[in-house]
Amino acid sequence: MTDPTKDLSLEEKTSLGSGADFWTTKAVGSVPSLMLTDGPHGVRKQTGASDHLGLAGSEPATCFPPAVGLGQCWDPDLIHRVGDALGREARALDVDVLLGPGVNIKRDPRCGRNFEYLSEDPVVAGVLGAAWVRGVQSVGVGTSLKHFALNNAETDRMRSSSDVAPRPMHEIYLHAFAHIVRTARPWTVMCSYNRINGVYAAENHWLLTELLRETWGFDGAVVSDWGAVRDRVAAVRAGLDLEMPGTGPAADTEVVDAVRAGELSQDAVDRAAAAVAELARRVEPGRENAADVDLDAHHRLAREAAARSIVLLKNDTDLLPLTPGTAIAVIGEFAQSPRYQGGGSSHVNPTRLDIPLDEIRAQAGPGAVTFAPGFTTDGSGDAATLREEAVQTAADAEAAVVFLGLGAEQESEGFDRDDIEIPWGQLDLVAAIAQVQPRTVVVLSHGGVLRLQPVTDAVPAIVDGALLGQAGGGAIADVLFGAVNPSGRLTETVPIRVEDCPSYLDFPGENSHVRYGEGIHVGYRGYDARGLEVAFPFGHGLSYTDFEYRDLSVASDETGVDVEITVTNTGQRAGREVVQVYVTKTGSRVVRPPRELKAFATSSVLEPAASETISVRIARADLAFWDERRGDWTVEDGAYVVGVGASSRDIRATDIVDVAGDDDSVPITWQSTLAEALADPAVAAAMADMLPAGASDGGDALGTDIVKIMGSMPLDRLKRFGMGSDALDDLLADD
Amino acid sequence: MTDPTKDLSLEEKTSLGSGADFWTTKAVGSVPSLMLTDGPHGVRKQTGASDHLGLAGSEPATCFPPAVGLGQCWDPDLIHRVGDALGREARALDVDVLLGPGVNIKRDPRCGRNFEYLSEDPVVAGVLGAAWVRGVQSVGVGTSLKHFALNNAETDRMRSSSDVAPRPMHEIYLHAFAHIVRTARPWTVMCSYNRINGVYAAENHWLLTELLRETWGFDGAVVSDWGAVRDRVAAVRAGLDLEMPGTGPAADTEVVDAVRAGELSQDAVDRAAAAVAELARRVEPGRENAADVDLDAHHRLAREAAARSIVLLKNDTDLLPLTPGTAIAVIGEFAQSPRYQGGGSSHVNPTRLDIPLDEIRAQAGPGAVTFAPGFTTDGSGDAATLREEAVQTAADAEAAVVFLGLGAEQESEGFDRDDIEIPWGQLDLVAAIAQVQPRTVVVLSHGGVLRLQPVTDAVPAIVDGALLGQAGGGAIADVLFGAVNPSGRLTETVPIRVEDCPSYLDFPGENSHVRYGEGIHVGYRGYDARGLEVAFPFGHGLSYTDFEYRDLSVASDETGVDVEITVTNTGQRAGREVVQVYVTKTGSRVVRPPRELKAFATSSVLEPAASETISVRIARADLAFWDERRGDWTVEDGAYVVGVGASSRDIRATDIVDVAGDDDSVPITWQSTLAEALADPAVAAAMADMLPAGASDGGDALGTDIVKIMGSMPLDRLKRFGMGSDALDDLLADD
Repeated sequence: MTDPTKDLSLEEKTSLGSGADFWTTKAVGSVPSLMLTDGPHGVRKQTGASDHLGLAGSEPATCFPPAVGLGQCWDPDLIHRVGDALGREARALDVDVLLGPGVNIKRDPRCGRNFEYLSEDPVVAGVLGAAWVRGVQSVGVGTSLKHFALNNAETDRMRSSSDVAPRPMHEIYLHAFAHIVRTARPWTVMCSYNRINGVYAAENHWLLTELLRETWGFDGAVVSDWGAVRDRVAAVRAGLDLEMPGTGPAADTEVVDAVRAGELSQDAVDRAAAAVAELARRVEPGRENAADVDLDAHHRLAREAAARSIVLLKNDTDLLPLTPGTAIAVIGEFAQSPRYQGGGSSHVNPTRLDIPLDEIRAQAGPGAVTFAPGFTTDGSGDAATLREEAVQTAADAEAAVVFLGLGAEQESEGFDRDDIEIPWGQLDLVAAIAQVQPRTVVVLSHGGVLRLQPVTDAVPAIVDGALLGQAGGGAIADVLFGAVNPSGRLTETVPIRVEDCPSYLDFPGENSHVRYGEGIHVGYRGYDARGLEVAFPFGHGLSYTDFEYRDLSVASDETGVDVEITVTNTGQRAGREVVQVYVTKTGSRVVRPPRELKAFATSSVLEPAASETISVRIARADLAFWDERRGDWTVEDGAYVVGVGASSRDIRATDIVDVAGDDDSVPITWQSTLAEALADPAVAAAMADMLPAGASDGGDALGTDIVKIMGSMPLDRLKRFGMGSDALDDLLADD
Repeated sequence: MTDPTKDLSLEEKTSLGSGADFWTTKAVGSVPSLMLTDGPHGVRKQTGASDHLGLAGSEPATCFPPAVGLGQCWDPDLIHRVGDALGREARALDVDVLLGPGVNIKRDPRCGRNFEYLSEDPVVAGVLGAAWVRGVQSVGVGTSLKHFALNNAETDRMRSSSDVAPRPMHEIYLHAFAHIVRTARPWTVMCSYNRINGVYAAENHWLLTELLRETWGFDGAVVSDWGAVRDRVAAVRAGLDLEMPGTGPAADTEVVDAVRAGELSQDAVDRAAAAVAELARRVEPGRENAADVDLDAHHRLAREAAARSIVLLKNDTDLLPLTPGTAIAVIGEFAQSPRYQGGGSSHVNPTRLDIPLDEIRAQAGPGAVTFAPGFTTDGSGDAATLREEAVQTAADAEAAVVFLGLGAEQESEGFDRDDIEIPWGQLDLVAAIAQVQPRTVVVLSHGGVLRLQPVTDAVPAIVDGALLGQAGGGAIADVLFGAVNPSGRLTETVPIRVEDCPSYLDFPGENSHVRYGEGIHVGYRGYDARGLEVAFPFGHGLSYTDFEYRDLSVASDETGVDVEITVTNTGQRAGREVVQVYVTKTGSRVVRPPRELKAFATSSVLEPAASETISVRIARADLAFWDERRGDWTVEDGAYVVGVGASSRDIRATDIVDVAGDDDSVPITWQSTLAEALADPAVAAAMADMLPAGASDGGDALGTDIVKIMGSMPLDRLKRFGMGSDALDDLLADD
């Protein structure tokens, strides 16, 4: 195969590295122009002429559940199918690269863009994000893994530095990116707006070259987030291949001049041009195989995905599913004006839109449903009157379904929330309804986590719809009436109070810095480490049936740990179980979270009394921690507790497995402490005559044991004090 | 005055900068040898020949309450008197410099050396530490302000790096040092063992020279903590004047060689020699005026100080004070073997020792007291038998006084605690006693904070003795029987659970690093910011009488804020009140703790119905926060809420004062965001035609307001997108 950039001039190569306009690259030589568009849950191809900010309307496209919803299915196969459908729609609209998935960790529930992200947990984000990439790319459309990296707040996002220590950076924030790059090979990675420990992602050579390409083996193109480049020369030097959107010829000229002046290597420009040309080559087969899209089938898939996204948070006294024919009061403006996606670049123009109220009417049967809006989302109407009407409507029915949530203007790309409260007096409304109607179900619509304790205290049943896309209305009805037995699981902890969040005191940062003060203790890791009660734990989700866990078996070999367990449907309805595998390392030499998710699997739909044996494998590398002492991953020796269960706080079976660790021993040097030296028999022997009489048997002049007091003294300091021995000098090399 | 180092050779000057042995400096030329010894609550002058580690026994000296106790008096005048007495004893023992005070912030209750430190709050540590320095130095003996700086854990203390952001470093950890250097002028400062953001304190030019000397104006000698020097040349270059202990001639030779090789400036050696010579000059008058010490008077002062150190934590149903003649069961080994100081370098050989049991017998009257040890501190004896005997003894009396606490081997310099539990089944003992004897008082002895909730739940009265020194036994009896009305206040929060501590997840660090993840939210700042319940709040302490607060007046001028309030004794007994002034800055542009102590004052002893008007002044500088944007302190403009009360959670009166802020405005540049630019009328006008139609009135293509989404985009990026105006170019300078 000929290299299409081989005969290009420096100017032409440079030109490949920046967009022609907001959404396309330039055709240069034999390399065609490519189109890249948002977004992760539907194609947002802008209509009409490109504007400066890419803010105009877009072509209709299927609006699948945004990541906040879709992630709750915990099912890579389903997400692969959604990715496939997204890829087909992109292809049909002549889109070559779909800008997703968003796999940033949901560090704080107030981040305005959390609805675009998958989880607070890196394994969930990594496994599901990889499935999305494989699905989209399976039809010949490229993906753009984003936002690389540490973009966990919207406030001041184009200047803010995410100041984070190495352990949380590697263990929490980079893990999903690494997993997806290595296993799903996205064709592009999108560098983020923010700085990381002071250095802009777009100008971060360590991030874009040393880590992404050299360590993880990334072989695609690095694209800038739209507007993330301040200094194109610095960015190309760091590893950026394509600046988007196009910013005119001046930026290309700067690069050419820098090469001519010897300030930027020709190699860097060659690398960037080759990466864009390679992207075009990868896109080519898909372009040739474009086909029409069956939008009806995609709407059905959107409904299936939405139903799988729903989490049944609470269902006391088996209030759900509802029986058709029951007189149902549907309450809440969201029932007729659904909130189904978030604001910003990912905003899709849906092909159609299911209205929850209509879908509930259809399944409840003729005349069974009454409705009252209860509140408005724009402040119009008289709140007291609306509430009174809603309470009366609920009182007059046999059950109430109350739609609560956040409005579109309360969460979006571009800004963060100040709190996690449910607005507009909705909490008072539901409390009043619960007073008159004990059979009340709450349905939630929201992109970010909400404070739910008041709802939990008020009503017996809660259905978490998060954001469900254009077919969410039907999916909600399917779950309410039992056409679908819910199997979604929370990908984020719901805290009792926002003040309990591990990141609470350091969000969204100040003076253009966000200190990641909670370190590795993000999400459930933090709540568990501090032993805090939560409203609903990570991984939680109920079913209309019950599952029993038995026959756990755990076995380790040189490359990982195999976990097998059998789940049995012990209830009365068919349903799926999501099996979660958590690992605890006891006796670690670093602080470890009490438990960390390492693997998960979704069962097939099991009929009552049916069983399925679930097998998952934990790669050895996933047992490692980032060892700041070695600047590398270390698997510690010894026992690991494997817990299998239905949520992070509902472990049903545990076993212990021994794993042979990496050799991470450190030789005794002059920098070793007295205590470390005395623990080494050879060194201790060489020191036998060094310590003063009384030191080894606890002199009491200082009120306590002397070696205990002095144990942290390095050997070089003891020597400086005049305490040494020839034997020790012989044993230890000079520093 | 002649400079005594003027005619010294390089070798002689260098020689002045290192000790002769463990405790003395060298006599060089006309500069005499000086003796420096531990420690803050008593003189620990080693007996006999100096050994390599300074661990031998010491001369008898009055053991005053260690800092954990003494700090609880919140009274600089009392501490000044204690300092004066310490100085006299030092002088009488030919000691020239007493190594204290220890003013490190108690970041985590598990730090093994917290008993040597004053508070979790920098204002308490600073004001009380300054009083100690003034007291000691008033009699011509030098002090050594320690451990400078960020030495907040014992684990791995000689290698560990305290990794801390600028705001907590300045606002929390350096504040007390700065206050004491500036206002009390200690003759020496002792640099600590640890590293600070990777650089050893002894080698930290920023710390020892730029901050300490150049910014704070320190004019004394910087002494190393004993063994803190690894590389004398690097240390002298950074600002160290005196390496202790002496490490032999090789270290001096290294310095001389480095100067000759041009690797170290002659100026640095001159500075160090001059600093040691100046210390000798300062010491001289005191040497000439040495006098005998009245050890009886010092023991009486130790008893007064101990009584003032006691905090009455709880006193339901006015169980205390006890009435002489009551049949009292004294329980607990600590009543006959008191725990009264901590282990390590500060350990004093007391001149005498008051036994609590004897003192209680003396005040209770003949035959009124029975005793049972209840437990042993060394595991001897049968626990069940001891407990049974104690419970029976308590049941047979009219009231029980139960001594609980930590043993000497559980907390010391040199190691940290793993938890904050009360050991040896003492909690079970007290619960069993409370079952049979409702009139039970618990007396606590401990250097570090304990988990007290089980004690609080069990008994109606708790007396916190912390560590009280050699006269603590009498002081406890004085408080129990009301000879002294307690007025001590907690200098540390007592949390409900150790897991609630702000620093819980980052203590004591790993891999020789301690991340100060909680930032500025240390102690009550953190508990308040997260809205956590605590067992006893910072500043808490009861009295046998009651005080009313009235007539708060607050006024600001250009240099500070005056606060005046009247307290009235509304109860039946004479007593003192500690008035605490907290400040809240609302609407700050950085995260501020909900309230911060800024000043405090102790009333005189007020008879029933007597009033006193307390006036305190808050210096303007103390309203500032450390502004990372400017790298300097900033006083923000606007309203400050001043709350005056009896603890951090018992605010009795509040007022609001307006303060004119520093000019911290930032000009609009190309790095400013769109939102910042639009907030500036002139810049907004220059940008009038730049934004696309629809941007200003909220286009809905992206589902939300465009300026809200785009507000964080810097102007240089907008320009790069091709959006600019000549007017804007004219207005903004090029970067």
